[in-house]
Amino acid sequence: MSEADLKRRILAEVQDELAAIEDALEANLTPHVGLVRAIAGHLLFAGGKRLRPLLMVLCARLCGYRGTYDIPFSTIFEYLHVATLLHDDVIDGGTVRRGRPAAHRIWNPPAVVLTGDFLLARALSIATRTGRVRILEVVAKVTEEMAQGEILQLQRKGKPDLTREEYLRIIRCKTAVLFEGACRVSAILADAPGEAEAALADYGHCTGLAFQMADDLLDYTEDGAALGKVPGADLREGKLTLPVIHALEQAPEADRRAMVEIITQDDFSAESFAALLNLLERNDGIGYTRRQAAAQVGKAKEALAFFPDSNVRGILMDIADYTLMRRS
Amino acid sequence: MSEADLKRRILAEVQDELAAIEDALEANLTPHVGLVRAIAGHLLFAGGKRLRPLLMVLCARLCGYRGTYDIPFSTIFEYLHVATLLHDDVIDGGTVRRGRPAAHRIWNPPAVVLTGDFLLARALSIATRTGRVRILEVVAKVTEEMAQGEILQLQRKGKPDLTREEYLRIIRCKTAVLFEGACRVSAILADAPGEAEAALADYGHCTGLAFQMADDLLDYTEDGAALGKVPGADLREGKLTLPVIHALEQAPEADRRAMVEIITQDDFSAESFAALLNLLERNDGIGYTRRQAAAQVGKAKEALAFFPDSNVRGILMDIADYTLMRRS
Repeated sequence: MSEADLKRRILAEVQDELAAIEDALEANLTPHVGLVRAIAGHLLFAGGKRLRPLLMVLCARLCGYRGTYDIPFSTIFEYLHVATLLHDDVIDGGTVRRGRPAAHRIWNPPAVVLTGDFLLARALSIATRTGRVRILEVVAKVTEEMAQGEILQLQRKGKPDLTREEYLRIIRCKTAVLFEGACRVSAILADAPGEAEAALADYGHCTGLAFQMADDLLDYTEDGAALGKVPGADLREGKLTLPVIHALEQAPEADRRAMVEIITQDDFSAESFAALLNLLERNDGIGYTRRQAAAQVGKAKEALAFFPDSNVRGILMDIADYTLMRRS
Repeated sequence: MSEADLKRRILAEVQDELAAIEDALEANLTPHVGLVRAIAGHLLFAGGKRLRPLLMVLCARLCGYRGTYDIPFSTIFEYLHVATLLHDDVIDGGTVRRGRPAAHRIWNPPAVVLTGDFLLARALSIATRTGRVRILEVVAKVTEEMAQGEILQLQRKGKPDLTREEYLRIIRCKTAVLFEGACRVSAILADAPGEAEAALADYGHCTGLAFQMADDLLDYTEDGAALGKVPGADLREGKLTLPVIHALEQAPEADRRAMVEIITQDDFSAESFAALLNLLERNDGIGYTRRQAAAQVGKAKEALAFFPDSNVRGILMDIADYTLMRRS
């Protein structure tokens, strides 16, 4: 199935949920300071995919949850996500996000940092409304891990010797734990048995890893360029990702040296980047990353095997597949 | 009693608690990323007064709490406080904090922002260990309010027409709610009745307001200069505080105009600042602020009247008095 067809199929199934999530994001924001609303809203209502809240809502359904709290509580995971995007963009000096100028280009960066703080706190406030300490534990832990993942990434920025283990640790902290948390919380909310919670946590974790690897691949593929992403943006920011790490490990000495020369440049020409892409292809960087992401999708879908077949399970399988195919 | 005598009397009574809080701050930090430990520790272990955790511990005792969780849980309020100091210093470009270079002058500012995020999350993580959703509600709400207070302050920075109401709203959010939260949580932890919780919340809130007003006064008094604070630092950062706001409201037109001229300058000479101090004195800015702070101390002590006389209650009364006398 093509990416467009898969996307259409998923969206047809979840349009009501997405509309409800959208309303809840608006209804639960409510800062009493107008500027916070403006800055948070700028990014929050710029058409995100709402993948994290959607996963929570769908996983809750899969666990047989029939209450009405899943939608409001799912906003936790979008608020946390947007909080980290706001901080990230200030930190990396990102210029465009979700098709809009990054918030810190419109408002002053300190106000953007503080709005991120507010969203973190708001996410935790909403989590307290669940009345479940275990949900709060998950959300607080996710927030801790994400901050540490970002700092690890920052610390290793510009280092051409980033290892595969460090890369995996970074993407676990900065992406997978949030996906995992959203899926795990749904099981807790639904009072599902421990095995169901563990299965959903696995599903979320593996889907998150696949999502991030696919995201990292977009930096080196035409799909990414077609999206308006600047090819090589990660590398320009000094972020080494799996395609490069693997190719560097695999490459014969001459190729390795050629790659290092390009990636350690402060900036590189279109020709250099094209040469790098060639070297990545030749040394299996692209193919390997795709296979690794596909393996995570496979694991995510395996985890769902714990649950009997159902429409919701099918959508969650589709979403796992979609992370790998997605072009946006 | 002199400030030094009062300080000595308080410290003699609480030295065991302060030592235990110090240990707990070390024991509960435990990030898995070394850089986070280094940045957080730089400010965390630079000899803060530990006033917020101390208030929590003492208030818990006042409520008859006999468990062992008060000390570890009290770290929540120091971590939150340090998180906001880290973010504030990045935002304001502060250069010195607790006698050390501000963290962002040693590490790059993004790493400092992320360490602040980690501390916020860690505070909430520790709060989950209380197993009490109400404690989490208080902590999450405090965090939300503090972020909004800081953003309000930022938004009104450099505005010579900041109103008294705006000033009060800012200091409530950025200081009083944290003091209030620390005192309120102690009552919840101790399973104290609602009236005791309300009394301690009042005590904390009023003590926090007095503390912040006294802090704002230090910017205009010799005590502040003796401490190594740069007189007029708030004003140079564009922060109007109560001494100026009140004097501007009270002053005859000529004085008002003279003050506005000084405070709207990007920078001002020692002569201009001396002239401003004169104008503040003449128009009751200093005296009025001192009276307002004293009134809050009075309210704080009144709130404690709910509790029978005891050694702990006496220390809490002393601490309220101390906020007004303190020179550091």
